[in-house]
Amino acid sequence: MLAAEIQNIETFKDDVNTAKILFQSSSADRKNAALEAMIEALEKNKELILKANEKDLEDAKPLVDSGKLKLSTYNRLKLDENKFREMIQGIRDVIGLDDPVNKKVWAMKLDNGLNLYKQSCPLGVVGVVFESRPDVIVQISALMIKSGNVVVMKGGKESKNTNVALYETIKNAIETVKGMPENVVNLLLSRHGFEQILKLDDTIDLIIPRGSAEFVKWVQDNTKIPVLGHSSGVCHIYIEPTAKHEEAIEICVDSKIQNPSACNAVETILVDYELKDTLLPKLVEKLRANGVEVRGCEECRAIVPDIILADEDDWFSEYGDKIVSIKIVRGIYGAVKHINKYGSKHTDCIITEDEDAALAFTNNVDTGNIFVNASTRFSDGYRYGFGAEVGISTGKLHARGPVGLEGLTTYKYLLYGEGQTVKEYCSGEKKFIHERIM
Amino acid sequence: MLAAEIQNIETFKDDVNTAKILFQSSSADRKNAALEAMIEALEKNKELILKANEKDLEDAKPLVDSGKLKLSTYNRLKLDENKFREMIQGIRDVIGLDDPVNKKVWAMKLDNGLNLYKQSCPLGVVGVVFESRPDVIVQISALMIKSGNVVVMKGGKESKNTNVALYETIKNAIETVKGMPENVVNLLLSRHGFEQILKLDDTIDLIIPRGSAEFVKWVQDNTKIPVLGHSSGVCHIYIEPTAKHEEAIEICVDSKIQNPSACNAVETILVDYELKDTLLPKLVEKLRANGVEVRGCEECRAIVPDIILADEDDWFSEYGDKIVSIKIVRGIYGAVKHINKYGSKHTDCIITEDEDAALAFTNNVDTGNIFVNASTRFSDGYRYGFGAEVGISTGKLHARGPVGLEGLTTYKYLLYGEGQTVKEYCSGEKKFIHERIM
Repeated sequence: MLAAEIQNIETFKDDVNTAKILFQSSSADRKNAALEAMIEALEKNKELILKANEKDLEDAKPLVDSGKLKLSTYNRLKLDENKFREMIQGIRDVIGLDDPVNKKVWAMKLDNGLNLYKQSCPLGVVGVVFESRPDVIVQISALMIKSGNVVVMKGGKESKNTNVALYETIKNAIETVKGMPENVVNLLLSRHGFEQILKLDDTIDLIIPRGSAEFVKWVQDNTKIPVLGHSSGVCHIYIEPTAKHEEAIEICVDSKIQNPSACNAVETILVDYELKDTLLPKLVEKLRANGVEVRGCEECRAIVPDIILADEDDWFSEYGDKIVSIKIVRGIYGAVKHINKYGSKHTDCIITEDEDAALAFTNNVDTGNIFVNASTRFSDGYRYGFGAEVGISTGKLHARGPVGLEGLTTYKYLLYGEGQTVKEYCSGEKKFIHERIM
Repeated sequence: MLAAEIQNIETFKDDVNTAKILFQSSSADRKNAALEAMIEALEKNKELILKANEKDLEDAKPLVDSGKLKLSTYNRLKLDENKFREMIQGIRDVIGLDDPVNKKVWAMKLDNGLNLYKQSCPLGVVGVVFESRPDVIVQISALMIKSGNVVVMKGGKESKNTNVALYETIKNAIETVKGMPENVVNLLLSRHGFEQILKLDDTIDLIIPRGSAEFVKWVQDNTKIPVLGHSSGVCHIYIEPTAKHEEAIEICVDSKIQNPSACNAVETILVDYELKDTLLPKLVEKLRANGVEVRGCEECRAIVPDIILADEDDWFSEYGDKIVSIKIVRGIYGAVKHINKYGSKHTDCIITEDEDAALAFTNNVDTGNIFVNASTRFSDGYRYGFGAEVGISTGKLHARGPVGLEGLTTYKYLLYGEGQTVKEYCSGEKKFIHERIM
């Protein structure tokens, strides 16, 4: 379809279902050819796309001036030569990744001439809604094409002109590739269109909402389609008594100030009781020297009196800003208990030189990403070497942590027989062999 | 806890959360020791358990006589020496399976001294509600212990006495094992208790409802906890023109009559147009000779006039009985289109001697279990060689098809560093290596 409203919901369902059937078993070569065609067309249409982006920036400027749009949103909206080059490199990275689907991953001989295979396959049709960052449309399209999924996208309204220019370039390019069906990539322009697809639990297999915690929650509450996303990023660092002080402080500072609005930034630092008189004052000093507002528990205030008192809400808070809360805890289990109660299953870290302490922490913290002696900011699909990510999942089912191509796949069991019926196995006339053959 | 009502919801949450923390990283040896203790105690308490079961049967008898309880439910309620032996064998099978958790399944060197591991772990706390089949409580407990999960169970009310006897035997036995925490297995006695846990989306990680399609749907509509189960089992067999006639008919009969109430029994047979004058009449005759009521489309009735006309509802029906609907379709894509529209993503089969036809079918049918030349009744965790199953999933996320131990696990990313911060990677001072080390 064109980037537009959904004219007729039944026609829309037919279109994406047909695209799904025709696309799901495409060869790696065909999908990579589509990605190459994308790169070529984007480079050819570069001027046109950058012009569309200028239009978006012009329209957004008055909103920034009048305070209706954040400057950070405006900056993310901008597509310059540099970002364009990175966007193209992102597609090349995806081309370089292994094909995640149509692979036999496990096999069992049930009996002679009766073999069972577990084979990876695309999820089918995935809906993605994202913020006003035009480069995302390219990244998502590339991941969906590589994983054999049909995608229905809805981008932020501020990047509408850029989105349409990028989308039409991508769509026209991939449909020139032999064997590529129509309607593999789809773009909705209105919030209404996105609300319409939330009702299509018979057609859409997964919804990936990118945006604020409130928005993700709203999506979860308003659809029966499975939702993959992160509720929030309340990340912790626990400084264990054996930690190297300098290293601990460096990691805390990096985890907080390197990008305070990122979901993998630290929000609460748990300082062991044994370190309260030694490390704590130095930590507070260094954080403040980096412009961080420090809040803390009563015990912290007994040591560093001018700390703002943290309340229950602070422990649940994703500040998204240069603010951090500090709590004094007693031992690993004090830290684990706090994290499992207040955390959001995103990323939590221990700073320690004691292997047993590290093991107790990694075993007992119920979180998707558990770090030992490293900044929480490493929690990211690109940094993990996944090439790209569709998002970070704080759910425990299906995909956890940064989600790359693998999270966009599922599997089928394929059983190949020679006419076997079960009655002989029920009567005992035949017996299963159950021998792993892969 | 004892088999009882939940007295205080906060205490209940604390109890299962504590059990989760203490149990999740248990060694394979400890878990197997708990399973061995279960076997020993069940054998020791056999008379007591069988007596409790007699009480349930006595209580149920008048309900069967007055038509309030199905005879099939009464029969499933019965625990005899034979079933008891099978139940014990089931635990031994689970002991024999590989430990599914605390395994590193993938690893990447991000940089020197900065290694990322993906490690399997238990889901945490799983709620399971099941029909009045007392052997299920033993099977579920064994699978949950082996996978390191805390379980909260609610069994059918008709098997209450047997459930309590089995549960207390299991609970007491496993808690004698050194290092096994309390409250790993929990049994609720009332529907009210089950409704209470559906609200605990901060404590329960997964709900597995076993029972009717309506019940599963009710659970899905009444909880925010992820639900694993099968909506229904509308399974298909498509007979392709190259099929061997005798074999096709044998498979259809086995798939329907071997256990008509099973979710993996066939409900609709799709006969290719090319076979309408040859195979169709023989198929109808053979099904009828086995006591099956045959319904069919108009085209079927043109060939076999006394077939009952199937309507739109029939194509969506899981009869659960000796009834089958037959439709004439044109080619693979006619079959695929019907299955993807009316099927329930459970199990679908093609009978063919043509490899290309088999490939087109397996590629394009959107179903968890796709069979070539074998009875749909093979779709089962035990037959697949999983040792046991918690159920069959018709969802596409997390686990699909028969779900064994693997579906009860998730994973964590563990990153081990030496004090690294991300700022050096952002500035370009350091570069990622991204080398797979596992």
